[in-house]
Amino acid sequence: MHNNDDPRPGLAELMQRGQLFSEKCPSREVLKHVTSRWGGLLLVALLSGTHRFSDLRRKVNGISEKMLAQTLQWLEGDGFVERISYPVVPPHVEYRLTPLGEEIGQKVEALADWIEEKLPVILAAQRSKGGGDLDNPV
Amino acid sequence: MHNNDDPRPGLAELMQRGQLFSEKCPSREVLKHVTSRWGGLLLVALLSGTHRFSDLRRKVNGISEKMLAQTLQWLEGDGFVERISYPVVPPHVEYRLTPLGEEIGQKVEALADWIEEKLPVILAAQRSKGGGDLDNPV
Repeated sequence: MHNNDDPRPGLAELMQRGQLFSEKCPSREVLKHVTSRWGGLLLVALLSGTHRFSDLRRKVNGISEKMLAQTLQWLEGDGFVERISYPVVPPHVEYRLTPLGEEIGQKVEALADWIEEKLPVILAAQRSKGGGDLDNPV
Repeated sequence: MHNNDDPRPGLAELMQRGQLFSEKCPSREVLKHVTSRWGGLLLVALLSGTHRFSDLRRKVNGISEKMLAQTLQWLEGDGFVERISYPVVPPHVEYRLTPLGEEIGQKVEALADWIEEKLPVILAAQRSKGGGDLDNPV
């Protein structure tokens, strides 16, 4: 495949490195998971260590039980979160980041930290814009 | 406000540094904009310089005209994107990152680059999980 004269990337090449700008590349789905309304917050929350479901629910203010379960499943499916189930009664389940999850968690945290730090500047920009943009045609 | 004995952060303090884990903090809305389905891709696309609306539409494969317009308005409202309108006939409008937009664009690009690079590992994790997770109660 490496000596192929066709300049278009083949599937093998696409899978060697994702192409986020390409509609069909599976990297888009992964970006969606980690930057979903709750995905990023959960990754950052889990950076501090293993958590139980109820701990996460308390930490990530506002998340519903259903969305917490679904988002954890996404992150587990991508190999970022590990679900550890202890064979005890009543059942005891814990969640922790995999090494891959720690790496991406740190990137998301860098983004989140930046936003938290720059929030006053961003809020000032929002105020100076008012709602006037909607009147301008694109 | 700085000598307040109340240990809960006041609005002034919240606005000095956002608190993403807090449901009512406006930083959550900003995180939503820059990590929305299209927001992140647009920031990364604009890192390479000034673009016209139609250039962006072509570059970010799959985005509709409506979503492109809406996402640009969000990013403009947060102070990340500048809309430059030239007084000519027919109207000519261009979009470029502000210095603040360049900073956040670089953080999002770091995240996107990581995902593109690690995609084979992530896809392997997805395959090894299959669809079995949905059968496990949380």
